Amino acid sequence: MPGRDADRDARRLADQVAQAERLRPLPACQDAENPEDKKRAGEAGPDADQCGRPVAGVKHLRREESADAEHRDESEDQRHQSHATDVHTGVHRIQDPAEQVAHHHRDQQQAAAGDQADQEDRIGYAHRGGLSLRPPHGILERGAGEPNQGDRELTDFAKVDAYIHDHLGDWLGELKELCAVPSVSARHEAIEPCAELVASMLGRRGFDTEVSPTDGHPIVLAHADGANRKRDLLFYNHYDVQPPEPLELWESPPFDLTQRDGAVFARGSKDDKGEFVARLASLDALAKAGGGYPCRLTWLAEGEEEVGSPHLPEWVEKHRHELAVDGAIWEEGGIDAQGHPLITLGVRGLLYVELRVQTISRDAHSGQANLLPNAVWRLVWALASLKGVDERINISGFYDAVRHPSPVERDLLAKLPSQEENIKKEYGIDRLLLDRRGIDVVAATFDPTCNIAGIGGGYQGPGSKTVIPSRATCKVDFRLVPEQDPYDIETKLRRHLDKEGFEDVEIDVLGAERPGLTKPDADLVHWMAETGEAVYGKQAMITPLSGGTTPTFLFTEHGVPVVAPGVGWGNFNRAHSPNEFMRLQDFENAIRHLARLTVRFAEG
Amino acid sequence: MPGRDADRDARRLADQVAQAERLRPLPACQDAENPEDKKRAGEAGPDADQCGRPVAGVKHLRREESADAEHRDESEDQRHQSHATDVHTGVHRIQDPAEQVAHHHRDQQQAAAGDQADQEDRIGYAHRGGLSLRPPHGILERGAGEPNQGDRELTDFAKVDAYIHDHLGDWLGELKELCAVPSVSARHEAIEPCAELVASMLGRRGFDTEVSPTDGHPIVLAHADGANRKRDLLFYNHYDVQPPEPLELWESPPFDLTQRDGAVFARGSKDDKGEFVARLASLDALAKAGGGYPCRLTWLAEGEEEVGSPHLPEWVEKHRHELAVDGAIWEEGGIDAQGHPLITLGVRGLLYVELRVQTISRDAHSGQANLLPNAVWRLVWALASLKGVDERINISGFYDAVRHPSPVERDLLAKLPSQEENIKKEYGIDRLLLDRRGIDVVAATFDPTCNIAGIGGGYQGPGSKTVIPSRATCKVDFRLVPEQDPYDIETKLRRHLDKEGFEDVEIDVLGAERPGLTKPDADLVHWMAETGEAVYGKQAMITPLSGGTTPTFLFTEHGVPVVAPGVGWGNFNRAHSPNEFMRLQDFENAIRHLARLTVRFAEG
Repeated sequence: MPGRDADRDARRLADQVAQAERLRPLPACQDAENPEDKKRAGEAGPDADQCGRPVAGVKHLRREESADAEHRDESEDQRHQSHATDVHTGVHRIQDPAEQVAHHHRDQQQAAAGDQADQEDRIGYAHRGGLSLRPPHGILERGAGEPNQGDRELTDFAKVDAYIHDHLGDWLGELKELCAVPSVSARHEAIEPCAELVASMLGRRGFDTEVSPTDGHPIVLAHADGANRKRDLLFYNHYDVQPPEPLELWESPPFDLTQRDGAVFARGSKDDKGEFVARLASLDALAKAGGGYPCRLTWLAEGEEEVGSPHLPEWVEKHRHELAVDGAIWEEGGIDAQGHPLITLGVRGLLYVELRVQTISRDAHSGQANLLPNAVWRLVWALASLKGVDERINISGFYDAVRHPSPVERDLLAKLPSQEENIKKEYGIDRLLLDRRGIDVVAATFDPTCNIAGIGGGYQGPGSKTVIPSRATCKVDFRLVPEQDPYDIETKLRRHLDKEGFEDVEIDVLGAERPGLTKPDADLVHWMAETGEAVYGKQAMITPLSGGTTPTFLFTEHGVPVVAPGVGWGNFNRAHSPNEFMRLQDFENAIRHLARLTVRFAEG
Repeated sequence: MPGRDADRDARRLADQVAQAERLRPLPACQDAENPEDKKRAGEAGPDADQCGRPVAGVKHLRREESADAEHRDESEDQRHQSHATDVHTGVHRIQDPAEQVAHHHRDQQQAAAGDQADQEDRIGYAHRGGLSLRPPHGILERGAGEPNQGDRELTDFAKVDAYIHDHLGDWLGELKELCAVPSVSARHEAIEPCAELVASMLGRRGFDTEVSPTDGHPIVLAHADGANRKRDLLFYNHYDVQPPEPLELWESPPFDLTQRDGAVFARGSKDDKGEFVARLASLDALAKAGGGYPCRLTWLAEGEEEVGSPHLPEWVEKHRHELAVDGAIWEEGGIDAQGHPLITLGVRGLLYVELRVQTISRDAHSGQANLLPNAVWRLVWALASLKGVDERINISGFYDAVRHPSPVERDLLAKLPSQEENIKKEYGIDRLLLDRRGIDVVAATFDPTCNIAGIGGGYQGPGSKTVIPSRATCKVDFRLVPEQDPYDIETKLRRHLDKEGFEDVEIDVLGAERPGLTKPDADLVHWMAETGEAVYGKQAMITPLSGGTTPTFLFTEHGVPVVAPGVGWGNFNRAHSPNEFMRLQDFENAIRHLARLTVRFAEG
């Protein structure tokens, strides 16, 4: 989501967080101290993992996919080459037709050699059981964030998990390479090279990859086949990052991924390059140790998420036929402070406007303030007409389309822990806005907002200057709830300003997204919960509506459910702030979760 | 005055102005085309100037003063020396006791040599008449800004005027040297060197000069004796300037005085270095061609005028005994667009505050806008509580001390031309604030103001960022009218904010000045008018209360009348803007006006 807390004060609080929740190094086998586990480890047969836990089943790999996965190391040179030569082509395909033929030929040979192993996996998968929805008794007593497969019988995920554990260093190497490309979208920096690198990373994993132009930054679109060709899972990521400033607050260079304290630090280490590489890793693990890609896969990686995805909706509409998927894995997932995997069903919409006033042709001496209209005053009065201290938005008709939480949503809200104390502590305040408490805190997302994100006009330097500002601007974001529509709100905003006598206040729409909602009873939600609970050993926390905005509506409005397993850890990752980090334990768990969810999704 | 229109848009309008009123080269003898003048020129005897106009009388020069004036060229080396060696001493005297003795010795010799000329001047002065209040018939028909001495009989100002005309180049050379010191007070740049240069310029003219420290920038204080030791005239100037930015809009380097189109261009060319040098020039002319300094002279040149003179009041109180003068010549004088010399009797007071709000410890993601207080919203609501679109200031008791214009002030207002059309044209608007017209435009200065000079908070860069700003600030200036007091208004502002629930809005006072008023019937006003009308050939325009602020109250409250003849030309000089300029004709006329006013003041 664009615009989180790039503030110099972030450091102090982040340090407090780090002190409170000391970053733990990733334990190799965290459950080893559990006597019950030790006993099980002693009894463990060939289907048990190194901690003695039973392992889950793995689906067989289709021949092409296996070979495409093998192709990974070979494509290293190709990546560099395409990176170097195709930076400015706009559209190109990493895997050209001639290359595909060659790959197919290699695939045939490799598939023949791997037949025996494939056969075993296929048999193993066929008669092993599915996943349980509820975590087993005893799991909930484990610590937050500790790897745990649950106690499902007869799975092959031990092999997948072991592969993941053994290859973390490789993927962190890829993440380092990706973070080294400073793809700051707000400044249009290193955008094309980063798109090319993302495309090549997908290409070397067998994806048919396209760097597709938009009126802004290119979008990487990629497709791969998988065992179940009737199911298609979409991964949404973004390859752009927030600016790294203020640079002086970074403890290691922002674009040089650095490992310390059980975590890796860099701009994008979590948001969103860490997420991206975790997904690649889960596919590698499935390809190498889990039998291959279990279904068709579609990848959409955009380069303008941090500036509000201005060109994504139009591009998605144009490419709708290539995006006919059955489910989508979005960004921004992870666990909460207590280690519960998070599921977010909906996001709010957004109308982001810049309001502008110009009253006189140039700034004037304030000795003439009785005679000349002041642009800042005009803007202040216009803003004050929008919302008063009671936080009620006074735009006529603003609340018309707002629907209250449904009974199911109310039940989900009631189960969520109130973040009241956490938020108060994090922002150093004694009470929340309007003195919200308890369920009102978690239910607050069902109220739309009118937020001034920034304002500026006249003299802002040190000391005094006596001017009448000729111009003033501010940025206002409205977070919209189901069923509000941003363009409807824009119309009503214009009408309101005119009615209140502020015809001179211009509106420039910088962003418009509708709310996106996945149904609570969608299968994907169910699978996300059960696989998450299996990995994290804690019940999933389901948030019916997030406070933020991300354009899931582009898919949810077409009936595609959207969930987001991921590498996040509460609000602690300092995304958008100096010293952004991803914990290694969250990285590993997310990969394991993604692998399980992808397999489960493929089963349908 | 601090804070005029440092705006990028200034250029466009200034160019329009320049186009409308094409800068004229200074005519050597502007009335030569007037048949009446040609006739007079033909009849002119030895007391007529080169245009045939009669010339005014010049007072005799005391020996010491004459010598001090002669000392000017000799002190060139001394100036450089003191400049180089005393930059950081804080206090020092350009003219030390040993030097004074040496000067006195030289003075005796020179005075003896000049006795014959002095004798003639003294006789000439003794039986020549005074100045007439009203310009003579025929003078008003002359063009604006054309040199004219009026038709007073028996004066020696022809000699003074000729000296002025012949030495303009020398003074422009001094101005070039002064403008080359980039004394930007807002950035504390080149302050001490500039103070030293100013002091040395005065020192070489016989002033006993002190660079006096303050808690901010030093103040140059200087005294010189003159013929009438019972009368003391103070000159107020400032040696600091506004920043030159935006640099790209300057057509010649901002700190390299450049002559073109009958004007000189540089930062400070008018405000206030041009004024300062014009005053020096008038004294030079009196010393060399008018018989010497006619009375005691006190000079006060501060270095913080452009940042609101924060340390001047305290310094003046401490040096009150050195400032016991009978009249003061302030800065910011000149003629209006029609060429009328301007007299301003009063200035408004000022309360300049910065208002600050911090709501949360750091900026937050705007998805939490239902939960976290927004600093910009707090500030907007607090501001909106101060004043509504009706421009009425809602602070309880704000208007208590406001007095309405007196009958005399009303009469003066009624005589002023409305600037309505000029202002509308200059700022590109169709109507003035509150649709003020006619006398309401000129009378508007008697209403106090509440002006937002600047506001800032949250994200102001390009595009969108969705943050809840943790902090917001704004600068508000209140222009105060007689008898309002800035500290009383500050108290009432605090009380208002508390009462309205804005205890979280902090107030930081950046400037506080009381209004300053010179009585309309003061002799100095009368002399200013008659000498101005004599020089400019147009009736003086008397403004009872200016819209701006300058700390004349430091003198007017002690019964010292304050006026300001000067080099200004309407609002056209681009003071505080790129391409600031001073017209050469305004420079010459101001020198002539200053010389006459000083002589007239000395007569008492």
